[in-house]
Amino acid sequence: MTAPLKVAIAGLGTVGAGTLTLLQFQADLIAARAGRPITVVAVSARDRRRHREVVLDGLRWYDDAAQMAAEADIDVVVEAIGGAEGIALAVCRAAIAGGRHLVTANKALLALSGVELAAEAEAKGVTLGFEAAVAGGIPIIKAIRQGLAGNRLNQVTGILNGTCNYILTTMRACGRDFAAVLAEAQALGYAEADPSFDIDGIDTAHKLTILTSLAFGTRVDFGKVHIEGIRHVSALDIRYAEELGYRIKLLGIARRTEAGIEQRVHPCMVPIGSMIGRVEGVFNAVLAEGDFVGRTLFEGRGAGAGPTASAVVSDLIDIAAGRQGPAFGIPASQLAPLQAAPMSAHIGAYYIRLMVQDHPGVFADVAAALRDAQVSMEAVLQRGRAPGETVPVVMTVHDTSEASMVQAMSRISHLAAVVEPPRLIRIEPF
Amino acid sequence: MTAPLKVAIAGLGTVGAGTLTLLQFQADLIAARAGRPITVVAVSARDRRRHREVVLDGLRWYDDAAQMAAEADIDVVVEAIGGAEGIALAVCRAAIAGGRHLVTANKALLALSGVELAAEAEAKGVTLGFEAAVAGGIPIIKAIRQGLAGNRLNQVTGILNGTCNYILTTMRACGRDFAAVLAEAQALGYAEADPSFDIDGIDTAHKLTILTSLAFGTRVDFGKVHIEGIRHVSALDIRYAEELGYRIKLLGIARRTEAGIEQRVHPCMVPIGSMIGRVEGVFNAVLAEGDFVGRTLFEGRGAGAGPTASAVVSDLIDIAAGRQGPAFGIPASQLAPLQAAPMSAHIGAYYIRLMVQDHPGVFADVAAALRDAQVSMEAVLQRGRAPGETVPVVMTVHDTSEASMVQAMSRISHLAAVVEPPRLIRIEPF
Repeated sequence: MTAPLKVAIAGLGTVGAGTLTLLQFQADLIAARAGRPITVVAVSARDRRRHREVVLDGLRWYDDAAQMAAEADIDVVVEAIGGAEGIALAVCRAAIAGGRHLVTANKALLALSGVELAAEAEAKGVTLGFEAAVAGGIPIIKAIRQGLAGNRLNQVTGILNGTCNYILTTMRACGRDFAAVLAEAQALGYAEADPSFDIDGIDTAHKLTILTSLAFGTRVDFGKVHIEGIRHVSALDIRYAEELGYRIKLLGIARRTEAGIEQRVHPCMVPIGSMIGRVEGVFNAVLAEGDFVGRTLFEGRGAGAGPTASAVVSDLIDIAAGRQGPAFGIPASQLAPLQAAPMSAHIGAYYIRLMVQDHPGVFADVAAALRDAQVSMEAVLQRGRAPGETVPVVMTVHDTSEASMVQAMSRISHLAAVVEPPRLIRIEPF
Repeated sequence: MTAPLKVAIAGLGTVGAGTLTLLQFQADLIAARAGRPITVVAVSARDRRRHREVVLDGLRWYDDAAQMAAEADIDVVVEAIGGAEGIALAVCRAAIAGGRHLVTANKALLALSGVELAAEAEAKGVTLGFEAAVAGGIPIIKAIRQGLAGNRLNQVTGILNGTCNYILTTMRACGRDFAAVLAEAQALGYAEADPSFDIDGIDTAHKLTILTSLAFGTRVDFGKVHIEGIRHVSALDIRYAEELGYRIKLLGIARRTEAGIEQRVHPCMVPIGSMIGRVEGVFNAVLAEGDFVGRTLFEGRGAGAGPTASAVVSDLIDIAAGRQGPAFGIPASQLAPLQAAPMSAHIGAYYIRLMVQDHPGVFADVAAALRDAQVSMEAVLQRGRAPGETVPVVMTVHDTSEASMVQAMSRISHLAAVVEPPRLIRIEPF
């Protein structure tokens, strides 16, 4: 099997162009490792005339990516168009329907149609590769699917969005507020012009659904992810976190609990010295915990042309070398429906920040609301006194249920002296 | 292909018994992920009557492991005997010669005979799996061989020995000396009764040669590793390191340089906040740096029954699923001889600690020796004065060659006021 693996790339943005560049630049090394050359023979993008930093000489050009994907003389299609539906999905379906392997970095598409595509690929005997869809250059898909395959996993938790981690790290390092740091991240190219997919946690949730499926052998189920973003994380909360020994991270958490599988994305306080608390800036990290291996952490760059191309090409090398397997670790038909734990059943510790008018009796009312909801306080931070003025009151509480917290917060938010909606950040001990 | 994969385990120590336990405990999950059952059918160990915490009912017993490995009705042999030669090597050769797949955790054997075994396995069309040989539960072999296969790697650096990292971490945390902490580690089972393989860096060097080969496509060459252990690291040096912003770690470093490939094992000062500086206790970590992916870090438990079994079983699952490939990433015949950089050509920063009799002129002599060897000082730490007494003088120097340092140290160690051999610890910036 020394004939070249013939690749078509649909989309020439960061992922597609990066993949093309890597395959051209590193052709000899890749051929040695794959056992045969991997050759790009065709590309497709929206605008043929647009200037690009890649060499397209000798490649067939298609205006219609779906037509390219259906072309006879191609072994693999790399879908690098993006978007959960539309042309990207059409390209993926056309590739598989035509008996071609498919490699994609498209987490949104996988979060919605991943199982369906996996089933189609298995029926056709082709590979669906998506190492690049989660945590960029970190080979976490292969790590969970193969490296840790002997383990029953208890949890997979990740910092899966470099934009959010960059913003949170910079807010802490500079003591600046969210809006200012976001604007700066946009200017530096670390955040999109429309940043909502990143900062509202959607992107993290897409990636988490894929990890959940791999880790627990369940069908991807994006609708069952509890999602909160980082817009409401304030510089004040980050300072308090530091004082309490925590870092604030946007985490995607998939965990096996007695109530079912938790799948949640939200800002978390994690101990400063913990494995995941130490991951800073644009870096991503995934912590996977298995019953035999214990905790493992995988850290690296989660985005950018180089890391993403590295991941796409790793899938292409596996395909060229004939290393196959079901996309989600077990056949798609065997993936179980996700038995999701309701968020109200979540048990954990919490950080609470209230902005209150400082007058006698306020704290007694707050304490009574917590007590009546069976919530047990761990620590309180209140700086000096400022009678009549608005001051922050910060508390941490011991493990309690989300339902109890919701009940307590509802009552507290209605207290006359509480002048802003309470801020609540979950604490993960790790 | 749904017939069970039939496994024989040679050796029932930590690795062998752990693997047997995992395969029995997790049989259903493993069968689902492998596409067919993985069944242990035979075992071999030195003493049949010894009490073991594993269930041997229904398994064929062999007193002679090599005979077992040559037996017809076996698909894979797990070599868990240990030792670079003797019976372990005989078992490995017998397994491959008989057309059986081989999985081993034996880094000493691989460091000496890895390429020869890989060539024999490739000739026979069987797999040589050794995920468990390096960094225990961390799937670093697969990560380098497959996950990062699109990259030309610039370096692979690891904390590869949990015993050493535990000792160094505990020395720092408790401010205690090497001998006391080693004794405690032995009592806790974290260090062997004869700890020299670990603390003298041999074990790390064995593992490093395997990583070097995978990373750079070179033949394993244990003879070309520069090896220093941790016996001479003192509590004093650890305190100074902390003051200078460093942690001391025993690292295995394989790096591409202009002078060739560096392969070295020695204590290093690394920045406290660096990826690798934060890895503490019995944990292992491997940092791999590629031209497209950038830096990635893999962290987890490097030893123990569970993590090692997890790694062995991951290889068995790949074999059961028919996922094959050359052991060292490219065919053994294509592995290049290692062009080793001589240690004298190493360029880096250094920490130096001298014990000197405190009287006028000593420092001028030291400074002159450094100057004459073209070594440029960065910082000096000297506490107060104690005329006539022995005091530590600590310096760091800017990037210089090992040859220059050897020259300067030779002259300094002959100064009358220098009462102990100078201590020298290389600084790695990361």
